[in-house]
Amino acid sequence: MAQKPSIPKGTRDFGPMEMARRNYIFDTIRSVFQLYGYSQIETPAMENLSTLMGKYGEEGDKLLFKILNSGDYLRSADRGLIDAGDYVRLTSQISEKGLRYDLTVPFARFVVQHRNELQMPFKRFQIQPVWRADRPQKGRYREFYQCDADVVGSDSLINEIELLQLIDDVFTRFGIRITIKLNNRKVLSGIAELIGAPEKIIDITVAIDKIDKIGIENVNAELRERGISDEAIATLQPILSISGTTNRRLEQLSEVLAKSEIGTLGVRELREVIDGVEALGLNAELELDVSLARGLNYYTGTIIEVKAKDVAIGSITGGGRYDNLTGVFGMPGLSGVGISFGADRIYDVLNTLDLYPDDTALGTKVMFTNFGTAEAAAAMKMLKQMRQAGIGAEIYPDASKMKKQMARADALSIPYVAIVGESEMSEGKLTLKNMTTGEQHLLTVTEAIETVKSDK
Amino acid sequence: MAQKPSIPKGTRDFGPMEMARRNYIFDTIRSVFQLYGYSQIETPAMENLSTLMGKYGEEGDKLLFKILNSGDYLRSADRGLIDAGDYVRLTSQISEKGLRYDLTVPFARFVVQHRNELQMPFKRFQIQPVWRADRPQKGRYREFYQCDADVVGSDSLINEIELLQLIDDVFTRFGIRITIKLNNRKVLSGIAELIGAPEKIIDITVAIDKIDKIGIENVNAELRERGISDEAIATLQPILSISGTTNRRLEQLSEVLAKSEIGTLGVRELREVIDGVEALGLNAELELDVSLARGLNYYTGTIIEVKAKDVAIGSITGGGRYDNLTGVFGMPGLSGVGISFGADRIYDVLNTLDLYPDDTALGTKVMFTNFGTAEAAAAMKMLKQMRQAGIGAEIYPDASKMKKQMARADALSIPYVAIVGESEMSEGKLTLKNMTTGEQHLLTVTEAIETVKSDK
Repeated sequence: MAQKPSIPKGTRDFGPMEMARRNYIFDTIRSVFQLYGYSQIETPAMENLSTLMGKYGEEGDKLLFKILNSGDYLRSADRGLIDAGDYVRLTSQISEKGLRYDLTVPFARFVVQHRNELQMPFKRFQIQPVWRADRPQKGRYREFYQCDADVVGSDSLINEIELLQLIDDVFTRFGIRITIKLNNRKVLSGIAELIGAPEKIIDITVAIDKIDKIGIENVNAELRERGISDEAIATLQPILSISGTTNRRLEQLSEVLAKSEIGTLGVRELREVIDGVEALGLNAELELDVSLARGLNYYTGTIIEVKAKDVAIGSITGGGRYDNLTGVFGMPGLSGVGISFGADRIYDVLNTLDLYPDDTALGTKVMFTNFGTAEAAAAMKMLKQMRQAGIGAEIYPDASKMKKQMARADALSIPYVAIVGESEMSEGKLTLKNMTTGEQHLLTVTEAIETVKSDK
Repeated sequence: MAQKPSIPKGTRDFGPMEMARRNYIFDTIRSVFQLYGYSQIETPAMENLSTLMGKYGEEGDKLLFKILNSGDYLRSADRGLIDAGDYVRLTSQISEKGLRYDLTVPFARFVVQHRNELQMPFKRFQIQPVWRADRPQKGRYREFYQCDADVVGSDSLINEIELLQLIDDVFTRFGIRITIKLNNRKVLSGIAELIGAPEKIIDITVAIDKIDKIGIENVNAELRERGISDEAIATLQPILSISGTTNRRLEQLSEVLAKSEIGTLGVRELREVIDGVEALGLNAELELDVSLARGLNYYTGTIIEVKAKDVAIGSITGGGRYDNLTGVFGMPGLSGVGISFGADRIYDVLNTLDLYPDDTALGTKVMFTNFGTAEAAAAMKMLKQMRQAGIGAEIYPDASKMKKQMARADALSIPYVAIVGESEMSEGKLTLKNMTTGEQHLLTVTEAIETVKSDK
């Protein structure tokens, strides 16, 4: 016997039940994206390496899956590089395509390539897998889906307000209670300006982030360790002690940053977004979090991060505003704002909280029995009517023992079995058995359809 | 300015309108698959090359996209192979994964790997892209979707009957008139047996296929050219002249193949499938076609091919029964039958015949205008109500000139614009403009929702 086959590490098969749950997640997100006026696009799994390389830092370049050129890829390879074992430079000679690493760079490439066909502002969403040659570990895969929505070509903060509403809408549908953390890159720039250490901004945010866990004193000690001057630490104190309601926090922040032009602008943007969202009402808790510093090399305005309240897991959605999505492809100055839902983590949260709707299961509602040629032929006529009524249904294809047939319905959690034996056939009816209650009734097809349809 | 970015040849971007149309195709096929009791699975884009190699013939091995191993792939490479320029053998040392070439081999791998979790018969469908390093040309891509449904673990011809109904159901929904061609591999084996030239079966079917175009005399000449003996050609004549209704054809075939056991079995299977389907009623035309020989190395029973009646294009769906799906992975004797919808060709047919439903377009039904902060805030409250009512809607994010805002709605074919200016705001209403008729009315949000929803 051949070796039992396997799949590459870090990848997954999805069976029927997992697919039903994943489809529930993707369909929910997709329908909300559409409700908010986002249009779907898809880009190829393979991009030219010239599009991908250099966009994710040196580490990212290494994590790209590269595709070997077809045919005799050695022919055009530089012997010197091979002899020197310089595989990094050799790669560009034997590989010109790679698998997409995220949806953002392909989106930027798409916008530039199709600039003349697009209506600005362009609101797009994209739900596709991405690939990363990361070391696989629990919850980290080499193939996983991203669900992104972005608006480009508009500076208006209405876009931020709408994206926050959209996030709220998605998680309300899922029944997941969330906190949306908000920050603004300009506020962080203001803080750095204020303490005269712009290059230390990441150290500062990392330290601030620990206040709740280790207290102000320890944060100050850590800041000192990270090389922040005592003077800067003193200047930082009012920011570290910001507390209270979101409004109260905004006021304190506004005072502290009053001398920084960019910081003040950041506070004003935060206030406009928060006021805008609160005027419309939100189920989620909104939290102004000055330590939130995701995508610091990338985001230029609003920064968004979503946490589940009832499950200890990392960020389940994130996003922000950027100023220059497409500059690297020769189209500068295009601002946008976007969010990305973490489908795998949302899947874990829904599983943990057992929040799937009852009907997130296999579509088959009725299984017809098969007692032989004549009975099966009669059953298939009724089966056809069921399907015409929109009911997912199947017939056991072989005339196996009744017990075996019922075992299938049971194993697949098919809620009804339609028994068509000799007596049913002679009456042109079927016996509908409810697999949950065990009840069964002799019914016409029309009656059976009504019964199945009225069962929720 | 950087070079305008591009995508690898043979791949495609799909913009909003193409996505809407493709989703219509996939959603239709998916919903019918589910109606027939098929469950969805997904497998990773990357499979181990040991899973893929040798499954598609020598040519297929070449057409696999291979992924370069991560890190220093040269370290474990054999210098001798490099020096000899033996890139074929070197590939197995520097690449251990490839992109999926079809959905059948990954499905077989899936069945073997998960054999203990699966309920047999296992009815699965799968809609995912596949990749082939084929020379790109019109209608042939390097990345394209396959939509497959298979039942494994059942020999019953009920499965064939159901798949034919399923095909009929899908194309009825699309509004595409089709001919379903049917044959049976056992009939072809019977013919080969009869004329004593089993190795010539492909030559024979290729020649038979031309009867309508070139006539019997020319077909006979071609058979002679292809090395078929005069005696065999004489034996073949009754088969070449088979004609009339499907029933009449079956009768003639049955007579001609009476002496061949396997041929007779093939005719019996064909009859059972055709009778079964006709008893249930079919919109498609069913055609018994003895020259149909697709997948001859693979199929062992029923062979199915679907042609569009109103567009000259190749087969748009195909399939058949196989006896040994998983033998190559060490699990012999698993019979199954499956079909594959050609999404790209169906897309072309729907485009050619302009058969998309009217609402296969962008989801946005209403665009709100934006005349400044106060008006936008009022508009966003109404917008929220619209979305809560399930209407896809957006607001123009910037307070641009009216003309520019209207141009967007026009360009995106958004059917309604909701104008919220000072006077509407003071009345708590909106002016709903129908972009097709130009009509506009001052309405409450509730009235506007009713108007939009009642418009079909």
